[in-house]
Amino acid sequence: MKTLASLALAVATVSLSAPAMAQFQKPEDAIKYRKAAMTVMSAHFGRIGAMASGKAPFDAKVAMDNAALVETLSKLPFAGFVPGTDKGETRALPAIWTEQAKFNAAAEKMQGEVAKLAAAAKTGNLDSVKTAFGAAGQSCKACHDDFRKE
Amino acid sequence: MKTLASLALAVATVSLSAPAMAQFQKPEDAIKYRKAAMTVMSAHFGRIGAMASGKAPFDAKVAMDNAALVETLSKLPFAGFVPGTDKGETRALPAIWTEQAKFNAAAEKMQGEVAKLAAAAKTGNLDSVKTAFGAAGQSCKACHDDFRKE
Repeated sequence: MKTLASLALAVATVSLSAPAMAQFQKPEDAIKYRKAAMTVMSAHFGRIGAMASGKAPFDAKVAMDNAALVETLSKLPFAGFVPGTDKGETRALPAIWTEQAKFNAAAEKMQGEVAKLAAAAKTGNLDSVKTAFGAAGQSCKACHDDFRKE
Repeated sequence: MKTLASLALAVATVSLSAPAMAQFQKPEDAIKYRKAAMTVMSAHFGRIGAMASGKAPFDAKVAMDNAALVETLSKLPFAGFVPGTDKGETRALPAIWTEQAKFNAAAEKMQGEVAKLAAAAKTGNLDSVKTAFGAAGQSCKACHDDFRKE
C-alpha cells in the first residue's frame, strides 16, 4: 500500500496538472475520495443546470460562483483512480486502467468544457451559459458511458 | 421538501457568505453533499498534515495549493445542514439545530483558521504552516466534539 501514492503519480496525466492532489493510505480511501469529489462537483454543476433549464431563475453571480467551483473541483477526482481500485464500493469499470489514454482524454475533455463554462458564466450571458453547460454535461455523460457501470 | 432550499438560506449565517451554495431536493441529498464536502476537505487537509508532522517532505507549492483548496472547501459543507437532516446516514447531533448560533460560530472559527493556514502556506515557511495547521485542526476537533456523534 505504501506505493499507492507513487502509483497515483504515474496513472493519469490529468493528475499531473493538479499539485493539490490527494494521496491515500488504502484503496477504499481513494474510492471514497473520488466519489466525494464527484458528488460535490455534481451538486454545484446541478445548480447551474437548474438555471440553464429554467427551473431556477438565472442569477449571474450564483452561476459564476458555482462554475468557478466546478472548475476547481473538476481537477480533483482523478487522483483517486489509482490501480487496484476497481473493486469494492465503486462503479468504476476496468477500462479506466486498460484504456488509460482514452480515460485521461475523456477527463481532460470534461475539464476543458468546464473551464469554458466558467468563462461563459463570467460573461453573465444566460445563452452562453446554456450552451457551455450542455457541452460540459455531454462530456460528463460520455465518460460515464464508457467508464462507469450502469 | 420544496421549502428545503429556502430553509437552507435561513439556517446558517455561514451559508450566507457562500453564494456558490448547493441546494437539495431531499434531506438525504443534503447529508450526502455535506459528508462528501467534508471528505474532500479532510483529504487535502491531511496532505498538509503529513508535511506538518514530518511524515511527508515539505513542498511549499503542494502545501500552498492544498491549503487554498481547503479554504475553498471550508465554505461548502454548511449549506447541507438543513433542518430535518439529523436522521439517516449521519453523525450530526441535534445540537446543530438547537444551538445554531454556537454551531455557526464553530463553523466560522474553522473557516477563519483555515484562511490563516492558506495565508501561512503562501509564505512557504514550514513553521508557520505547522502552527496554523495545529490551530485549524483544533477548530475541526472542537466542532466535532460538540456537534458530531462519536
